[in-house]
Amino acid sequence: MKKVLFATTALVMTAGVAAAEVAVTGTGRMGVIYDGNDAQFSSRIRAIFTMTGESDAGLSFGGSIRADNSANGNQGVAGSVYVSGTYGKLEMGDVVSASEAAIGDLPEIGYTQGGFAGDLEEISYLTGDGANLDQGPNILYQYTINNISLFASASDGSDRKWFTTTGANDNIECTYDPVTGELVDCATVSSDDTAWSLGANYEAENFTVGLGYAKDGDAKEVTLGGKATFNNIAVSAIYADYSDRDSISFGGDDATGNFVDDLTLTSDNYQLSKTWGLGLEWQQDAIRVAGFYRRDEIRTTDIGDAAGLDDRDFDTFGVGADYDLGGGATLSGGIVDSDWLNDTVADMGVRFKF
Amino acid sequence: MKKVLFATTALVMTAGVAAAEVAVTGTGRMGVIYDGNDAQFSSRIRAIFTMTGESDAGLSFGGSIRADNSANGNQGVAGSVYVSGTYGKLEMGDVVSASEAAIGDLPEIGYTQGGFAGDLEEISYLTGDGANLDQGPNILYQYTINNISLFASASDGSDRKWFTTTGANDNIECTYDPVTGELVDCATVSSDDTAWSLGANYEAENFTVGLGYAKDGDAKEVTLGGKATFNNIAVSAIYADYSDRDSISFGGDDATGNFVDDLTLTSDNYQLSKTWGLGLEWQQDAIRVAGFYRRDEIRTTDIGDAAGLDDRDFDTFGVGADYDLGGGATLSGGIVDSDWLNDTVADMGVRFKF
Amino acid sequence: MKKVLFATTALVMTAGVAAAEVAVTGTGRMGVIYDGNDAQFSSRIRAIFTMTGESDAGLSFGGSIRADNSANGNQGVAGSVYVSGTYGKLEMGDVVSASEAAIGDLPEIGYTQGGFAGDLEEISYLTGDGANLDQGPNILYQYTINNISLFASASDGSDRKWFTTTGANDNIECTYDPVTGELVDCATVSSDDTAWSLGANYEAENFTVGLGYAKDGDAKEVTLGGKATFNNIAVSAIYADYSDRDSISFGGDDATGNFVDDLTLTSDNYQLSKTWGLGLEWQQDAIRVAGFYRRDEIRTTDIGDAAGLDDRDFDTFGVGADYDLGGGATLSGGIVDSDWLNDTVADMGVRFKF
Repeated sequence: MKKVLFATTALVMTAGVAAAEVAVTGTGRMGVIYDGNDAQFSSRIRAIFTMTGESDAGLSFGGSIRADNSANGNQGVAGSVYVSGTYGKLEMGDVVSASEAAIGDLPEIGYTQGGFAGDLEEISYLTGDGANLDQGPNILYQYTINNISLFASASDGSDRKWFTTTGANDNIECTYDPVTGELVDCATVSSDDTAWSLGANYEAENFTVGLGYAKDGDAKEVTLGGKATFNNIAVSAIYADYSDRDSISFGGDDATGNFVDDLTLTSDNYQLSKTWGLGLEWQQDAIRVAGFYRRDEIRTTDIGDAAGLDDRDFDTFGVGADYDLGGGATLSGGIVDSDWLNDTVADMGVRFKF
Repeated sequence: MKKVLFATTALVMTAGVAAAEVAVTGTGRMGVIYDGNDAQFSSRIRAIFTMTGESDAGLSFGGSIRADNSANGNQGVAGSVYVSGTYGKLEMGDVVSASEAAIGDLPEIGYTQGGFAGDLEEISYLTGDGANLDQGPNILYQYTINNISLFASASDGSDRKWFTTTGANDNIECTYDPVTGELVDCATVSSDDTAWSLGANYEAENFTVGLGYAKDGDAKEVTLGGKATFNNIAVSAIYADYSDRDSISFGGDDATGNFVDDLTLTSDNYQLSKTWGLGLEWQQDAIRVAGFYRRDEIRTTDIGDAAGLDDRDFDTFGVGADYDLGGGATLSGGIVDSDWLNDTVADMGVRFKF
Repeated sequence: MKKVLFATTALVMTAGVAAAEVAVTGTGRMGVIYDGNDAQFSSRIRAIFTMTGESDAGLSFGGSIRADNSANGNQGVAGSVYVSGTYGKLEMGDVVSASEAAIGDLPEIGYTQGGFAGDLEEISYLTGDGANLDQGPNILYQYTINNISLFASASDGSDRKWFTTTGANDNIECTYDPVTGELVDCATVSSDDTAWSLGANYEAENFTVGLGYAKDGDAKEVTLGGKATFNNIAVSAIYADYSDRDSISFGGDDATGNFVDDLTLTSDNYQLSKTWGLGLEWQQDAIRVAGFYRRDEIRTTDIGDAAGLDDRDFDTFGVGADYDLGGGATLSGGIVDSDWLNDTVADMGVRFKF
């Protein structure tokens, strides 16, 4: 439930004078996750500040920032800023890529909304959404005409650290080793590439289709997605085709788990070739049941072939149910079985909106 | 003073519809502390977000999170989430143990509310309240029938780091060396124990008595406490008996001071055997005077005996006075003399509630 | 635009009862900066909590704290607390020095308000404003009689880390090497000095003049400044004379850029001798044009002379323009050419007040 704080000035404002506002809302969750070995407590509470304003000429602007507690007290702060008018909306900060804005992800399950399994319902988009932020903030532009929305996003292509923008400064590139969970093979590279993406979607009454393209250095991504709604059932499908992509990252802030033991996804041996997924959601009154299936296809490079390695497919299956308790509270549970994880994992708990 | 933000939606709500709210309050303080050698400035300001809601069936839920500034800009964020109904209240996050919930601590003194002396008015409860949080969030359950409240708390017993929960992941156990202020004798251990606690208290018109039990691995704690009020005087007493407890921690976020030089409290040589304390508070109109006495009894182990070490008792005495200036401001000062600290320390300043 | 949250209690309060309040406001900005080599995206959003209260006797108190996002998620939290009454205002926390409070800085330019060039419009005051905070919070006292304001500020002179206050604890002193951007020649010193400052200014209808003095160890600062306003033009001048000052720091949180290559400002070879600057601002309806010129004079020490080094002057010139879009939004751009920076740098973007 959204709470808009009234400005004292707002109370005496005459019509036509634009007012800037800050709304304070929050979310919370608590419950138990089963990580395959142990049942663990997991809770979080978050304050969210949503700011909106309008210039004299009718240009909308705003932004949001949040403060988190995930029981370790070390979560960062995410936020973005935007301007919006007749020429579209331009957003800067922690924004998703054009591909993701056009297509989205598979259905979220569980009280941690997929977090308990490393957010495997999120397609590993090549740019944006936490990726490529070492260059500083990303931008996302959106323009909607009738039922068609066009999206474009980019990083600035410079990881030079400067006074008001971040940067790795050293152009160090590393590989994530899923076995040890550490970054390996770090090397200083001489230049950086703009990571950019284009996307479009078409929204009809009962269905949405979207298309996206992204590029980051040599790596390319073509993504296609669609969602159709029949009565209280929604079906979605996403297909992503990659080339020269030598790393895969899982969405969310918490991707620090232990992955499957026998995969060494290095830039020399393996590449992520394809990801495709199906989602199903059924809603009846206070009850929602959702599930997804996803396959990530890992292909060996020439070096991997020479080393005698085989192609690998990683299947993930998840299902969950929500019960809306009203007033902003939802009882929820989910279960995920994935080749990316050693074990079947689950969560069960409540989440709140304030 | 508590400020509840009105939701715009709330203003037009019909009766019977539950509304979630976020209240923004704050606290501040400024003054001078004398650390035994130097007078130092010490200030803090804190924004607190308190969230509350109610489900359609009347289940209460909520949580709180705060953002701090302690003039070093590096303070973490603490918070917790709860659900509450006819079956009691279940809270998760940065929560105290059942023992502490049932019994509490000795009276706070000074404008930093004990902080200037390492919060020595806080009994060093074995579990909860900052301890055992390496496993992720703690839970605390409370159920009240008439004058009797029952409490139970636990950690999840797993320090495996996973996507939505924290963990040390390596099961490393260390000993705090009070001389150097560093963790020593760190070793990887194979498993972790659930740190749990049970407690109960009985509240009559003029007095409260409480009992608590806690266990963390081999270490045990039995705590007994009571508080009686006569007119404008309150007297409290707390007794805690420990077995196999080889570390002691002081409450609060700021336990980074320099302790007494000649104590080496290692798991080999010493154990904390007993802590007991007495508190006295006197309130007359805007004036409050409070004091406490506390003794921590450190006993040598067989190894310590063989090393020729002696048992040690650590006495702490504190006294302070508050003057309520009205409107949320309080003028306050305190003085603490403790064997845990090299010198007599004091603070004097103002604190605010917003 | 300031938003004051109404307390529920406030709504039913009778006249004469003081109420504490928390106002939530925010700022945002987005745009492009040119760092001399690359165009980079730069955005920030900030939530600001401003707290105010009044005691029964009419003493005002309050404070502020902010939460930032600068797209790297690692910004700290700055804040301060104050009490204010007929005897003046006493503030503690992240406060400026008396010199800076009396005199101020040169005009800010660009949508990052000088940040894109390392805040070179800010005079490098010897104490306060980020400097000397290793000892814990600074204090600033202000007393105004008619047109004259008197200022005094100080650090506590102790960098001993203690429970409720920060400190380097080791009295380590280092030198900032502008070539590598690292701290070098770190050495443990035996004691710390109170960094203090005195200042005064006189405000007439059309002009303000100010004078400041500061001392930190052997280093001294005498500062003189003035600002005059004619119709829609404001002219300002600042002159700062230093002795025994062996380090210079730029204001703001972001001073992490790459400075000029051929300067090695160490305590052995160089000292900052003088800084003087001129500012000009012109405002017409929604348009503001501002510029500044600044010279920092670096003089060799005897050791530097012996090493054959020469005196160096660092000139900085900046100009910018703002266009007020109304409703809290401002379109803004600036350009700075400085000997402190390898290249001419610029920014262009929008900033918002919520």
